[in-house]
Amino acid sequence: MTSTLSRDTTVHPDRSAWTETPSDSAGWIRRAHEVASILAADAVERDRAGATPHAEVALLKESGLVTLLGPVEHGGGGQNWVTAYEVIRAVAAGDGSIGQLLGYHLLWFWAARLVGTREQIEAVETAATQNKWFFGGAVNPRDSDVTITDNGDTISYTGRKSFSTGSHVSDVTVLEGVLETTGAHIFAIVPSNSEGLTFHHDWDNLGQRLTESGSVTIDNVTTEWASAAGFVDKEFQPRVYNTLNVPIIQLVFVNFYLGIARGALQAAADYTRDTTRPWLHGGFDRAVDEPYVIDTYGDLTTKLWAAEALADAVAVEQQKIHDNAWDVTAEERGAHEVRVAAAKAAATDVALEITTRIFEVTGARSTSSKVGLDLFFRNVRTHTLHDPVAYKRREVGRHQLIGELPEPTWYS
Amino acid sequence: MTSTLSRDTTVHPDRSAWTETPSDSAGWIRRAHEVASILAADAVERDRAGATPHAEVALLKESGLVTLLGPVEHGGGGQNWVTAYEVIRAVAAGDGSIGQLLGYHLLWFWAARLVGTREQIEAVETAATQNKWFFGGAVNPRDSDVTITDNGDTISYTGRKSFSTGSHVSDVTVLEGVLETTGAHIFAIVPSNSEGLTFHHDWDNLGQRLTESGSVTIDNVTTEWASAAGFVDKEFQPRVYNTLNVPIIQLVFVNFYLGIARGALQAAADYTRDTTRPWLHGGFDRAVDEPYVIDTYGDLTTKLWAAEALADAVAVEQQKIHDNAWDVTAEERGAHEVRVAAAKAAATDVALEITTRIFEVTGARSTSSKVGLDLFFRNVRTHTLHDPVAYKRREVGRHQLIGELPEPTWYS
Amino acid sequence: MTSTLSRDTTVHPDRSAWTETPSDSAGWIRRAHEVASILAADAVERDRAGATPHAEVALLKESGLVTLLGPVEHGGGGQNWVTAYEVIRAVAAGDGSIGQLLGYHLLWFWAARLVGTREQIEAVETAATQNKWFFGGAVNPRDSDVTITDNGDTISYTGRKSFSTGSHVSDVTVLEGVLETTGAHIFAIVPSNSEGLTFHHDWDNLGQRLTESGSVTIDNVTTEWASAAGFVDKEFQPRVYNTLNVPIIQLVFVNFYLGIARGALQAAADYTRDTTRPWLHGGFDRAVDEPYVIDTYGDLTTKLWAAEALADAVAVEQQKIHDNAWDVTAEERGAHEVRVAAAKAAATDVALEITTRIFEVTGARSTSSKVGLDLFFRNVRTHTLHDPVAYKRREVGRHQLIGELPEPTWYS
Amino acid sequence: MTSTLSRDTTVHPDRSAWTETPSDSAGWIRRAHEVASILAADAVERDRAGATPHAEVALLKESGLVTLLGPVEHGGGGQNWVTAYEVIRAVAAGDGSIGQLLGYHLLWFWAARLVGTREQIEAVETAATQNKWFFGGAVNPRDSDVTITDNGDTISYTGRKSFSTGSHVSDVTVLEGVLETTGAHIFAIVPSNSEGLTFHHDWDNLGQRLTESGSVTIDNVTTEWASAAGFVDKEFQPRVYNTLNVPIIQLVFVNFYLGIARGALQAAADYTRDTTRPWLHGGFDRAVDEPYVIDTYGDLTTKLWAAEALADAVAVEQQKIHDNAWDVTAEERGAHEVRVAAAKAAATDVALEITTRIFEVTGARSTSSKVGLDLFFRNVRTHTLHDPVAYKRREVGRHQLIGELPEPTWYS
Repeated sequence: MTSTLSRDTTVHPDRSAWTETPSDSAGWIRRAHEVASILAADAVERDRAGATPHAEVALLKESGLVTLLGPVEHGGGGQNWVTAYEVIRAVAAGDGSIGQLLGYHLLWFWAARLVGTREQIEAVETAATQNKWFFGGAVNPRDSDVTITDNGDTISYTGRKSFSTGSHVSDVTVLEGVLETTGAHIFAIVPSNSEGLTFHHDWDNLGQRLTESGSVTIDNVTTEWASAAGFVDKEFQPRVYNTLNVPIIQLVFVNFYLGIARGALQAAADYTRDTTRPWLHGGFDRAVDEPYVIDTYGDLTTKLWAAEALADAVAVEQQKIHDNAWDVTAEERGAHEVRVAAAKAAATDVALEITTRIFEVTGARSTSSKVGLDLFFRNVRTHTLHDPVAYKRREVGRHQLIGELPEPTWYS
Repeated sequence: MTSTLSRDTTVHPDRSAWTETPSDSAGWIRRAHEVASILAADAVERDRAGATPHAEVALLKESGLVTLLGPVEHGGGGQNWVTAYEVIRAVAAGDGSIGQLLGYHLLWFWAARLVGTREQIEAVETAATQNKWFFGGAVNPRDSDVTITDNGDTISYTGRKSFSTGSHVSDVTVLEGVLETTGAHIFAIVPSNSEGLTFHHDWDNLGQRLTESGSVTIDNVTTEWASAAGFVDKEFQPRVYNTLNVPIIQLVFVNFYLGIARGALQAAADYTRDTTRPWLHGGFDRAVDEPYVIDTYGDLTTKLWAAEALADAVAVEQQKIHDNAWDVTAEERGAHEVRVAAAKAAATDVALEITTRIFEVTGARSTSSKVGLDLFFRNVRTHTLHDPVAYKRREVGRHQLIGELPEPTWYS
Repeated sequence: MTSTLSRDTTVHPDRSAWTETPSDSAGWIRRAHEVASILAADAVERDRAGATPHAEVALLKESGLVTLLGPVEHGGGGQNWVTAYEVIRAVAAGDGSIGQLLGYHLLWFWAARLVGTREQIEAVETAATQNKWFFGGAVNPRDSDVTITDNGDTISYTGRKSFSTGSHVSDVTVLEGVLETTGAHIFAIVPSNSEGLTFHHDWDNLGQRLTESGSVTIDNVTTEWASAAGFVDKEFQPRVYNTLNVPIIQLVFVNFYLGIARGALQAAADYTRDTTRPWLHGGFDRAVDEPYVIDTYGDLTTKLWAAEALADAVAVEQQKIHDNAWDVTAEERGAHEVRVAAAKAAATDVALEITTRIFEVTGARSTSSKVGLDLFFRNVRTHTLHDPVAYKRREVGRHQLIGELPEPTWYS
Repeated sequence: MTSTLSRDTTVHPDRSAWTETPSDSAGWIRRAHEVASILAADAVERDRAGATPHAEVALLKESGLVTLLGPVEHGGGGQNWVTAYEVIRAVAAGDGSIGQLLGYHLLWFWAARLVGTREQIEAVETAATQNKWFFGGAVNPRDSDVTITDNGDTISYTGRKSFSTGSHVSDVTVLEGVLETTGAHIFAIVPSNSEGLTFHHDWDNLGQRLTESGSVTIDNVTTEWASAAGFVDKEFQPRVYNTLNVPIIQLVFVNFYLGIARGALQAAADYTRDTTRPWLHGGFDRAVDEPYVIDTYGDLTTKLWAAEALADAVAVEQQKIHDNAWDVTAEERGAHEVRVAAAKAAATDVALEITTRIFEVTGARSTSSKVGLDLFFRNVRTHTLHDPVAYKRREVGRHQLIGELPEPTWYS
């Protein structure tokens, strides 16, 4: 685990070497840092342009990161989630939007394991790895439900979702809806260019602007019953493990928040060192010698390291659950979700603090639009509102006080 | 003093009534709230458009606020600084940029009193009031000095300043430079359309985007020796009072920071009440009933009120100094500057906290670009870097610990 | 209003001059500072000894502060609550316990105005002023009710209260109970040495150790119906004004919290200046030159000043209500209570922060028991728990969000 | 690593089982929790009594924790520092003083490895393990130096140290002084009952009251040259590893701060659950259901977990250095010290926040002296002043900004 502020600026990626697949976790993390350094170089410009991130997703594919979790025998990285979280964090340090895209992708890549049958898991992972599918999803539960019609051998989804991260740049999209006849929730993977699937390209928010998180209309999008995740003969067998999507996605959030925070602190330190002028009446020749500057970097770094250490520890704890997926108890699952909730609260606090306070140590001129140092704040402020962090503290508090386990849901 | 969050949205200004001049402080403050409500209506759109604020300055003139401090006999408001600060705060709640423009203008309007002779004071205030001059200034001391050539009866300024707030929309501009022969600093007011004065319209920063704070080139701009502020027969007589520019301008900052914070909190409360949805798993029907939402508004309002109360108290203290301008002691001046420094630190902290935390109680969808709730943060974050707040805490700390008085300078 | 940290240590009280009554507010505040300087001299030792504060109450009587609010014609100070709050704050800076005793006393002194008839008000104020009564109270509503029996011309109180501040050192005690027959709440003033009134001297808490806040047993304590506050012919006429006890007592709290905080900061500054050694590896000759020391004092002073300014502003607002007592509207009363709630939250936060952080700038050796710097924290931490500050933020938040007025109660 | 708040109250130690030595890290940590639960039972009473902790040290010996780091072949635990830190933290959760005593002891036990020769290391560890020595030390560098006289075969120490943790309860004491002839610093272990060694039993501070940290007079205390740590033929060979004392002792601090914080949070949660009453006007039947209570526990737990995770991560990093002691580079050592500095800053912040804020969720009556909840704050506040945490942030800030490595010293 990378515990100090790695200086991505010293990474000089040689993309020709990417034809070779890293053989271990450290190699993949190095690869992620290389991707980050490429993204960081023009992150401000690309954010401003707001173009659909085709090139960025191509970069993720070229680097191999999209199949990080895929089986080695099909060309995947064969890595576990501890490495995946570290990779997400590293990429997000270079570009928060792309870190989010990668994180969501890895969850959807993994989703077959959470709700699919053994056959589906194998089929999805094989196809996704061999074809380097990039996943998007349209499953936001805060909208009214998408309805599913049972056509006999096939099912058809119809409805609308306000947010569908990755939409335009994905190869396949995870749909979710409610079967009209039984009320059952059904997930299925469909090609993103399916007829009836219209992405509206209307994500225009403060931050994470390159995530293509706009709305989607789903008009009679049809797929085989066989691709209804976890259904055999139209029946679903719930398993404890299937409730792990919330801990996974929330820890994805944690890691790209921390990545953005690390990117911000690093960019700020570079600016302070290279550009910031000492204060007129301060008596110092260099900004880096001013006590308040040193103290601020010391404080922010300390807080970042603590949140990173918690995220790292919780990732290891989660991996133990993955490794024991079918035997995990409700107690173990619940206690883990509480730990993830705490990591979320800690990461949110530190990412907001870092991305707003860095300006104090870069100075007045660093607010110039051409510097673009606000990108980090905009990214963090936008996504940390995904679900209220107050409810994460509530989960932690109730667990500590009265031992309550959070009720498993399939969303936050 | 307005101590509770006044709801500007309930103010329905009748501009036809503005032909009548308010007769007291309360009337002027009401007028300022009316101006603010007009500005607030399209502040987000105007910020985005980034056009030169001609209409906004015309509004300030029409409302009479530009001559708030001017002599009644010439059509001015005849108000004191306690009212002026309240007015700046009120306007900034509607539009932070315009609050800054007004605040800087009022300082420059008043500047003759700080460095001028009695004759100059009377001449400037008469002309400025009668003609409703809008003032700009080009005096940033962090640039290398503008040089002044003595031509006998006239002096000529030549040089460059990186920042010149109000430039494009001003009628007159305050110049500052150093006389080549003696090294004396000389201030003078010149028409903003003087030959040789070129505003570069290059202010492109994160916030306070409508302040026209771009750079200026000063190429042999000539004025009479008679307009050299405070000079008689080319000699300058320093007076204690002339060192009050820093406390005034810093308290101007304090008040437009607090105005922006108040505007932010008010806009957020409106949004939470009207638009924010309660959390999915929270068990409440309305967002305004969620404990974390109530607690956050309670906390932010408390902090705002405390900072406002300090700003109000310090304004009253400053007015006592204005009322006793020629007899103020160095001790009184210094102790006051320390109080202003504390107000600056308090206002900075609360304005940053409010403008970043409001999102937590407006929710994920409030980050949509069309809501524009980030305007407040961008404005506060940008200007609070004008000079490092750490040095304000240093002034306060040294005074408390060892009784040190801050050395008077003519800039922050 | 005293806005800077007044150095009580420079006050050298001449108690022989106390025979003369101060003629104005400033004189009374000076008197309070003199009292504080006497108390501060041995506050740590007296706290440790934990003796009943007879001498301290005698000092309050000698100084005239106990009759500060009493009618001038009977020898009282004739001051208003703005001065009273300032006096409480000043005394608390010298000794938090005695500040609380004085504050509670002043509320009870004033209580006749809140619930009494005109005749009772005059009678109580005359007797209390002429006899320099020191008031205690036994009215904590968190205990089950004290019951009152109607004996015809007299009423008798029987029950128990867990806390009765001032008990042992008071001349008279305010009792409260519920009339068995009607359920009406009745307040009455009885001599503290009344038969049946037993103070148990069992206050043994972390702080405010000299307030004699122990439990009391009330065994058939009998008084005339005529002394039942506000009752005429056994009937009570409620008036809006009678609901002002909560704002008054809460603002009393605010002011002695701020007084303790100010005392702490002053004691710490003295210690840092006189005793603290610079850090071994810091490169400074004096602790007062270390940047972190200066920054901490600057930060704490700033926060204290802001909370003080809010307390001062709210006191002025309250005085307007007192001055218009019989015509105050429910809206005005409610809005004021919300302002008091905010002042309470602000004072609590700053008092806790100051009293814990001062150690960081006084250093390791300042934890020696003989220094006693923890007294301030213990006092603040103990009393700020009187009622949960979270509910004060809730009042403020609800008022700001949905305009809700707090329901008047007769306790916090 | 224990990552959740372990509830020591559920531990029912069976001391008869302690005759058996734990075989792995988990067993030792369990043992430490058993010791903690015994200590917690009367920690408040023992703190108040302030007796010399003979029984407590006997308990540490009986449990085997004193020889945790000792060689297995001599009856020691053979554990590494990762386990040791966890053990210190666990014990400190039961009693902060005893956690400190154990932590200091383990450092001194280990100290031979930092400065001794191979022969000395083996001799000390053998003797200390076989005899279950409890170590004290008298090496505070903020006092003027103890002088050493060279007597030929022996050396004699003479001087005074203000603080000597563990003194009265130790079997052996580590002395440090400066050789008169050469100025060399020499450490040596002497019996605590050596003639000339007088412990003054004058530690009377706010917290950590049972650590016996009083002053010591050293009057011609004589030992063999052979026991001068690291000296061969009166010559000292410095090794990089010998500079690891600061990282070790500072991480000892970190862990007993975190232990105290954990103990505080656990004691508070027990009290809130069992004793705290819901607020009068809150509308809840149980304190544990009040939103502000839940939020506070959620927030404090989150912060504690983050600091614990950082401490755990840094312990693992340190162990890698121990495992590679003779080849560690200056860069590796420096980067590690910076990480320890951050852990110190994080632990200090969270321990202070928890130990002051718990009262807000235990309520007014929890300030009763018989509850004793202030013990945690007093312990943390006292020891966190050992050296200014501001200088730890400075180390971190300088390293991040300009890559500066902290200069190795032998004390903080």
